[in-house]
Amino acid sequence: MNTFQVALGNRSYPIYIGCGLLDQAELYTRHIKAKQVLVVTDEKIAPLYLDRVLAQLKGYKTTQVILPDGEQHKSLDVLNQIFDDLLANKFGRSATLIALGGGVIGDISGFAAACYQRGIPFIQIPTTLLAQVDSSVGGKTGVNHPLGKNMIGAFYQPQCVIADTNVLDTLEDRQLSAGLAEIIKYGLIRDAEFFSWLEANIDALLARDKQALAFAIERSCVNKAEVVAEDETESGIRATLNLGHTFGHAIETGMGYGEYLHGEAVAIGTCQAADLSRRKGWLKDSDVERIVALFKRAKLPVYPPNALSPEQFLELMSVDKKNVDGEVRLILLKAIGLATLPVGVDESLLHTTLAFYRS
Amino acid sequence: MNTFQVALGNRSYPIYIGCGLLDQAELYTRHIKAKQVLVVTDEKIAPLYLDRVLAQLKGYKTTQVILPDGEQHKSLDVLNQIFDDLLANKFGRSATLIALGGGVIGDISGFAAACYQRGIPFIQIPTTLLAQVDSSVGGKTGVNHPLGKNMIGAFYQPQCVIADTNVLDTLEDRQLSAGLAEIIKYGLIRDAEFFSWLEANIDALLARDKQALAFAIERSCVNKAEVVAEDETESGIRATLNLGHTFGHAIETGMGYGEYLHGEAVAIGTCQAADLSRRKGWLKDSDVERIVALFKRAKLPVYPPNALSPEQFLELMSVDKKNVDGEVRLILLKAIGLATLPVGVDESLLHTTLAFYRS
Repeated sequence: MNTFQVALGNRSYPIYIGCGLLDQAELYTRHIKAKQVLVVTDEKIAPLYLDRVLAQLKGYKTTQVILPDGEQHKSLDVLNQIFDDLLANKFGRSATLIALGGGVIGDISGFAAACYQRGIPFIQIPTTLLAQVDSSVGGKTGVNHPLGKNMIGAFYQPQCVIADTNVLDTLEDRQLSAGLAEIIKYGLIRDAEFFSWLEANIDALLARDKQALAFAIERSCVNKAEVVAEDETESGIRATLNLGHTFGHAIETGMGYGEYLHGEAVAIGTCQAADLSRRKGWLKDSDVERIVALFKRAKLPVYPPNALSPEQFLELMSVDKKNVDGEVRLILLKAIGLATLPVGVDESLLHTTLAFYRS
Repeated sequence: MNTFQVALGNRSYPIYIGCGLLDQAELYTRHIKAKQVLVVTDEKIAPLYLDRVLAQLKGYKTTQVILPDGEQHKSLDVLNQIFDDLLANKFGRSATLIALGGGVIGDISGFAAACYQRGIPFIQIPTTLLAQVDSSVGGKTGVNHPLGKNMIGAFYQPQCVIADTNVLDTLEDRQLSAGLAEIIKYGLIRDAEFFSWLEANIDALLARDKQALAFAIERSCVNKAEVVAEDETESGIRATLNLGHTFGHAIETGMGYGEYLHGEAVAIGTCQAADLSRRKGWLKDSDVERIVALFKRAKLPVYPPNALSPEQFLELMSVDKKNVDGEVRLILLKAIGLATLPVGVDESLLHTTLAFYRS
């Protein structure tokens, strides 16, 4: 087992990464203060792992909420189901919430923990590659609004993250690829050496080579933890983690939550951001080709859905969290391994990318 | 104008108290960073003060949300109306939200500001006595759940509080009395001298004597600011501000939100807490008589509704935020001017108070 610390003063916490961690009761209990524990999971994960988690919690007063699976259920209404359960069971402020699932479960459960009685402790047990390398780390929690993704939420840090790499055995191929999109992102924004490693090892990752996966997860978590420690609430450098996400969120919102996996939308959005960076004169043609080729090899989509017109993209992108007074601002690339902070983009140039970079 | 600082490190902010502050544009603009401003208010306050507030915001891109009046509307559904408006107007993370109204508006707007895009700046303009002396100060925001009051929320501090004492001229008598309940609370928990002053000046306050009101508001805000500065997220001393509130929340939830004003429920609950403190051997009979007499003179109810049985009280009190693993914990009084931290209470003794202390 490897342990990394996310360094955030009195909100610091460990990320545990290794095989079989799900069954190590002591990892849970050292972070649980009182008797009441709620496990939130979804219909897909519950039959696979819920009993194993509950088996570690003997002696606690446990209850569980099983939510429907998918991004379309990351809503205020579903959030309220978690509150219903907490209150029906008279859970207090020292109760602990455990998020067992992918990014959707982590985001909505973390936000429930942030808001219930103005904040109760919670533990992240990410069960997808994407959640292990990205969404479970760093304290971004929240739900979607019909008009924009992740528009309602909180910065709220967990007590710990338990990333058991064995759970990836049951992951669908499509979900594995979605996780690779965020892994590639770390290479692009701040770790050129890792990007080259990914080019050399993408086939091993797709073949679920344990050693390659462990390396990629750890390297991603270290990158993320460094960025978050430097800028917890995204007043600066943390925004670079959003490479490709403004385009990506527009795809997720515009096509209907759940149609594209988050990682798939981010892959497309990152290719769009790369195209725009080339038009800005920052990336070489060969850089863009390398980027697009790696996403393709990871079995990810690289072109936006034809159903979304450039005009719809512009409309959807106008509510992004990085915008100021309505102006669209994007993370772009100066080179492979070097992202910009949010930059305002001339709308006609943005339109060119949106119109040109299509299948 | 008097200015007090709530000392919370980089979340510190001023409380401005004085006559006519509503019309001082500079008080607003010094705390607004970007062009977008949303004013949230209610149907009762909008016709009285909304235009005057908007008149101070020339040059900004303003929009407004007018909510129905009353505690029963402090819900997740109504919260979502604020998000709808923010997103429909493409408001960004640097937009400012202004809460213009009583405690309900301040609580729900503050929570909207805390959650929208994971946090945007907000300004409190409290228009009731209760909001000026209590709910607008200290960063407790949130909404109610059918099973418990203020169960969903955040600690989130405003940029400033603008308390214009002139707005109290339009306050209904019943609302004025409700505010006095929280003012009396400060005397009871930590300021015996203030309690004596209130005994001597309660008639002047009810007659809306400007000087008496100004003194009571300032003394209350100073008390609250000191407590909050010491314990922002209620891990200790801040819980004393909850004197009477566990009983009071049970009344508000049990009778249906809006039936009793918050201050009315707190007045009753504080008398119940005083009765229980006497049974614990801490308060003298004469102390309890002084307390009940002062609430009565302030034209506040002092007996719980007969419609709520002791058993219903116990059930409703079992979800209070101060409880640990299901045990009811209450703030009680050791003397007038000295509150306890949350203490576990023997259920049979609590039942005695609930059964005995009735009209």
